[in-house]
Amino acid sequence: GYRFLVKKNLARWLVMGLIGILTGIVASGIDYFIDLLSQLKYKLITDYINKCINNSCLSIPFVLFVSLNAGAVLIASILVAYVEPQAGGSGIPQIKCYLNGVKIPRVVRIKTLVSKCIGVVFSVVGGLAVGKEGPMIHSGAVIAAGISQGRSATFNKDFRVFEYFRTDHEKRDFVSGGAAAGVSAAFGAPVGGVLFSLEEGASYWNQSLTWRIFFASFISTFTLNVVLSYVKGHPWDLSNPGLINFGEFNSVTYNGVEIPIFLMIGAIGGLFGALFNMINHKLSVFRMRHVYRKSTKVVEAMIVAGITAMIAFVLMYFITDCSPLGNDPTEHPVQFFCSDGEFNGLAALFFQTPEASVKSLFHDPNNSYQPLTLSVFFLVYFCLSIWTYGLAVSSGLFIPALLTGAAWGRLVGIFLAQIFPNQGWVDPGKYALLGAAAQLGGVVRMTISLTVIITEATGNLSLGLPIMLVLMMAKWVGDYFNEGIYDIHIQLMAVPMIQWEPPPLSSNVLACEVMSHPVTTFRTVEKVGRIREKLEKETHHGFPVVDEYDPDADDNTTFGVFKGLILRDQLLVLLENKVFKDPHGNPCNTTKLSSKDFRNQYPRFPDIKQINISVHERECTMDLRPFMNPSPYTVSDRASLPRIFKLFRGLGLRHIVVINDTHQVVGMVTRKDLARYRLEHVGGELKLEEMDITHS
Amino acid sequence: GYRFLVKKNLARWLVMGLIGILTGIVASGIDYFIDLLSQLKYKLITDYINKCINNSCLSIPFVLFVSLNAGAVLIASILVAYVEPQAGGSGIPQIKCYLNGVKIPRVVRIKTLVSKCIGVVFSVVGGLAVGKEGPMIHSGAVIAAGISQGRSATFNKDFRVFEYFRTDHEKRDFVSGGAAAGVSAAFGAPVGGVLFSLEEGASYWNQSLTWRIFFASFISTFTLNVVLSYVKGHPWDLSNPGLINFGEFNSVTYNGVEIPIFLMIGAIGGLFGALFNMINHKLSVFRMRHVYRKSTKVVEAMIVAGITAMIAFVLMYFITDCSPLGNDPTEHPVQFFCSDGEFNGLAALFFQTPEASVKSLFHDPNNSYQPLTLSVFFLVYFCLSIWTYGLAVSSGLFIPALLTGAAWGRLVGIFLAQIFPNQGWVDPGKYALLGAAAQLGGVVRMTISLTVIITEATGNLSLGLPIMLVLMMAKWVGDYFNEGIYDIHIQLMAVPMIQWEPPPLSSNVLACEVMSHPVTTFRTVEKVGRIREKLEKETHHGFPVVDEYDPDADDNTTFGVFKGLILRDQLLVLLENKVFKDPHGNPCNTTKLSSKDFRNQYPRFPDIKQINISVHERECTMDLRPFMNPSPYTVSDRASLPRIFKLFRGLGLRHIVVINDTHQVVGMVTRKDLARYRLEHVGGELKLEEMDITHS
Repeated sequence: GYRFLVKKNLARWLVMGLIGILTGIVASGIDYFIDLLSQLKYKLITDYINKCINNSCLSIPFVLFVSLNAGAVLIASILVAYVEPQAGGSGIPQIKCYLNGVKIPRVVRIKTLVSKCIGVVFSVVGGLAVGKEGPMIHSGAVIAAGISQGRSATFNKDFRVFEYFRTDHEKRDFVSGGAAAGVSAAFGAPVGGVLFSLEEGASYWNQSLTWRIFFASFISTFTLNVVLSYVKGHPWDLSNPGLINFGEFNSVTYNGVEIPIFLMIGAIGGLFGALFNMINHKLSVFRMRHVYRKSTKVVEAMIVAGITAMIAFVLMYFITDCSPLGNDPTEHPVQFFCSDGEFNGLAALFFQTPEASVKSLFHDPNNSYQPLTLSVFFLVYFCLSIWTYGLAVSSGLFIPALLTGAAWGRLVGIFLAQIFPNQGWVDPGKYALLGAAAQLGGVVRMTISLTVIITEATGNLSLGLPIMLVLMMAKWVGDYFNEGIYDIHIQLMAVPMIQWEPPPLSSNVLACEVMSHPVTTFRTVEKVGRIREKLEKETHHGFPVVDEYDPDADDNTTFGVFKGLILRDQLLVLLENKVFKDPHGNPCNTTKLSSKDFRNQYPRFPDIKQINISVHERECTMDLRPFMNPSPYTVSDRASLPRIFKLFRGLGLRHIVVINDTHQVVGMVTRKDLARYRLEHVGGELKLEEMDITHS
Repeated sequence: GYRFLVKKNLARWLVMGLIGILTGIVASGIDYFIDLLSQLKYKLITDYINKCINNSCLSIPFVLFVSLNAGAVLIASILVAYVEPQAGGSGIPQIKCYLNGVKIPRVVRIKTLVSKCIGVVFSVVGGLAVGKEGPMIHSGAVIAAGISQGRSATFNKDFRVFEYFRTDHEKRDFVSGGAAAGVSAAFGAPVGGVLFSLEEGASYWNQSLTWRIFFASFISTFTLNVVLSYVKGHPWDLSNPGLINFGEFNSVTYNGVEIPIFLMIGAIGGLFGALFNMINHKLSVFRMRHVYRKSTKVVEAMIVAGITAMIAFVLMYFITDCSPLGNDPTEHPVQFFCSDGEFNGLAALFFQTPEASVKSLFHDPNNSYQPLTLSVFFLVYFCLSIWTYGLAVSSGLFIPALLTGAAWGRLVGIFLAQIFPNQGWVDPGKYALLGAAAQLGGVVRMTISLTVIITEATGNLSLGLPIMLVLMMAKWVGDYFNEGIYDIHIQLMAVPMIQWEPPPLSSNVLACEVMSHPVTTFRTVEKVGRIREKLEKETHHGFPVVDEYDPDADDNTTFGVFKGLILRDQLLVLLENKVFKDPHGNPCNTTKLSSKDFRNQYPRFPDIKQINISVHERECTMDLRPFMNPSPYTVSDRASLPRIFKLFRGLGLRHIVVINDTHQVVGMVTRKDLARYRLEHVGGELKLEEMDITHS
């Protein structure tokens, strides 16, 4: 009744609020432990260096640094390689697939959440070129899936709450909220979070859902800020600028004459981003072929950690970029070979978390870094970040891309300051920000959501226009060469993702060319043996239910007259509960199934192999009519590809039955059939490509 | 070919850019003239008052004030009543309908644009309780429709460009961009503009479209800022805080303990908003019944203008709220009966544009207004704004709502300052802002887009959370009583708008109950006479094409076997071009129609009454098969209402053919059939209502 509807609606808000709170708490926990452990590590090493620089025992801190880092990464990679492989990487491609309607196993399990959270703390503490933002977004999604279902498969515990949310559709809505809350917590960008969810996942805008997602998103930032306001010692002072992720950009202005420079920065970012994606793509293919054993993965991660640490140490040793102490960007300034009262600039960049280094590049005074330092740092970090993304550790991509971009952006700023001296608008920090935006945009190719995320993270709306221009150029230039990194990795996972737009020039491709056939159909009253046999052989999710069809006849031109559609999950529950009729038409048992019996199994239905069906039972029949969906979406065999595409995209379908003029089933179209048609943008040329998609 | 696709895509960006630039220019023009004329008016009156206060000739400025205002409103209302009625009001309900797929005649004509722009200047200068924001949004939409079609019906000029955008779908996409650009120019809120377009119009999120809308939106703010930077004398200084619409809220902070206060403010806003909507609804019904003559409309507008001016003058005369000169909120401080060196606070609120008064309430120092002044101002302005919305003038609703809310919000702030003295967070200006947000939210019930618009207009992201909380409460409380003002006015226009969600508990309502029947169908080869006759009698937009159907038989149970769908517009073009075959099956003429012939007529197809068909020709036939859509979306007669609803909402359909199991047409579902089912929230009770919708 209506009372239930009101209750369900209130429960939706409650769940979104809980998602926001928990995501905020988890994110602040990750923040806190990364900070704590990193401080301990850097303090220890800094003390040793300062002690050893005069006693020529620098090998001690060197060995200590390398081994501490490799040790932390060992933990991080064991969690991914041995405990939960889905906890690897940033998780954003997986979330994107999930929101797009493609389920990847174990992506939203609690085990994944725990491995991911602990893993990312150790991979950041291990000094890898990684960030914690991607994993935070993934965490938000897992939290959402967990809370909204009111039970956990990992702990085998069912709280018997929110049972009415146990459908794909509801769960996906909450996961959108969780992802938004994750972005919001990661960057302090609640609006950006909502846009991220929409841009990456939504096919169909819904006012009240968006408003709830916004709520989760805001609550998440709010919770994080409350926790951090305690940690930083200003309890409940929620407008404290220390809570702004990229630091406060208050006094930054820009001028109309800079617009060409913004466009140029965007273009550079697009080029570097495309290069990043190209090399990382090749590397990922290599990894899939050669680095597949668990132990090899762990060893690779440790090698990268060791080399990262070594390079950092060696560079600090050789490049002496000294600045006076006083406006130190880091809490652990290292003197190295600088004079007393000075510190080493390169060491400052390496001796803090990558996130803190991004802030340093954005906000340090104008002459803090020499061009040489920045160039070397950029080159090294660019290569390291390419190598790191795809390692078997929990690792975000945002911060390394931002840091790389901030380094070259600041370089651009320094050069501009030499060309246009004494101009108020030349500010290396601002250019570092724009370079960071350009580099990230060139790699991930997100549009409006990234613009808003970066703008919110700076806490300054007036930089919105430059950021937008830069991201637009970066996307245009990058798209000329290849796709965004997430799409590349989704393609490597061979997932049938549906594009935004129907492939152009495909309006002459008809349903009968796209569809799969023959189709396995079941008769309205079907033999149990045949159902069991077909379910064992096939992995399809839906089967048309038909009349006037003899599966054993040789001269079938169609697959029967269409009556409805039944899902694999439903058939499994029916088989398990043995809702059979004996050959005389009498019910074999008195089980009455309600919708609750279907829902309680969600989302893990029994395996067909575990359902025992006796030889006698195989001769029984099942009447599918009470359970089938009598009016699913169908499409005519003469419908064009763009029309089918719009149906899938607009309604979030997984399959559709193709019927002919006489209402007979002639085929089925699944996401996989559609995902075969892709538009390729390689080298500025557009090509309609038919891909091979293997079953994932 | 692909080359054409690339060109079309570039043209889309170009058009969006042009829309942004033109919208920005139009908006700055409106800004400029309102400012110029208002300054002239207020200067004149102020001079007279200052001269007369000692000479007891106050009747002169009084008469002058009333007559100047009434005169300006006379122009504004003539433009609406006599020139173009669609230019009345804010235009947002009309744009909402347009984006929802319902066409209202003349909404996006150039004539409407001109009337609206000139009209809004005079209605604001006329001192009415109106703002320019709604009309700016409408203007953006008209500009978009005009540019994207490359021709103007008002000037009967076809530039023969962008002909490939002459479809409903493309035009709607551009109008979304135009509306976003309008919001962006009106509030300096580019992201808010995009969200406005999505919240009010989109049914189906599309990454590249959204990105283009964002582009238009940003270009519009940019253009406006460039123009204003010249006007204000800092050319190209684009991050000048003078460009922030609500003034700069830099130093404002908030504290966790204020959260209950925010919620309370939201609730008050919801109550006042619901009251506003209720009274305005009754008033609008009254107006529809009694104020329908053009002259009465003009007289009513002038009466309201006169009374507004009189009340303002009388209040200024009687309420002596004096503050020292020096931090004057207005450019024309009026001394009235204050001592020398002081000015009258109430006069300050009335003697500037409503927008400037909003800024004054947000930013004036703490003791600028006495509680009595604010209470009286709130009461008066609340009543005036209810009376004004719906007058036959071009008038926005945002600013009056913000101003009313700012008045009571500041009052709340003053009381809080007395209860909690010496607390850093008590700032009347901040509470004025939150009150303004609450009042506006209570009236319009927008969600995420309004949050972002207000946040962007303050230029301070840290106020995002309080604004969101306030708007959430305001919407919840307001929705308990009635709908948002725009939805109320859309209902009064009797437009079949489709809701966001399928009506709950309607899953047992089947297509066969919802659909309209009998259906007019045409045979694949149909007599010209019958087509003509049916088109004259019926106003439907689409007709099923069928086989095996005898329209004259009495025993038809269905309307033939479904073959395709043909649109009214197509039939009109076919009739006009006389694509007939004589009774022997020979073509009557040699006209070959291409898709261009259909497109060139768009969007104004010939009237059936103007097409001459001879008696001889009526016996000819038309073969519809080459022109019909052979595979439109169809739905089974057993499909449930929510399923049909999703199809309409997700795909933006206008009609769908209902077919039975044997592929025969049994009915059609149109938007009107769906819009009948509405969920009513009256008094917290949910009711499924079947409305009467008359044809608009």
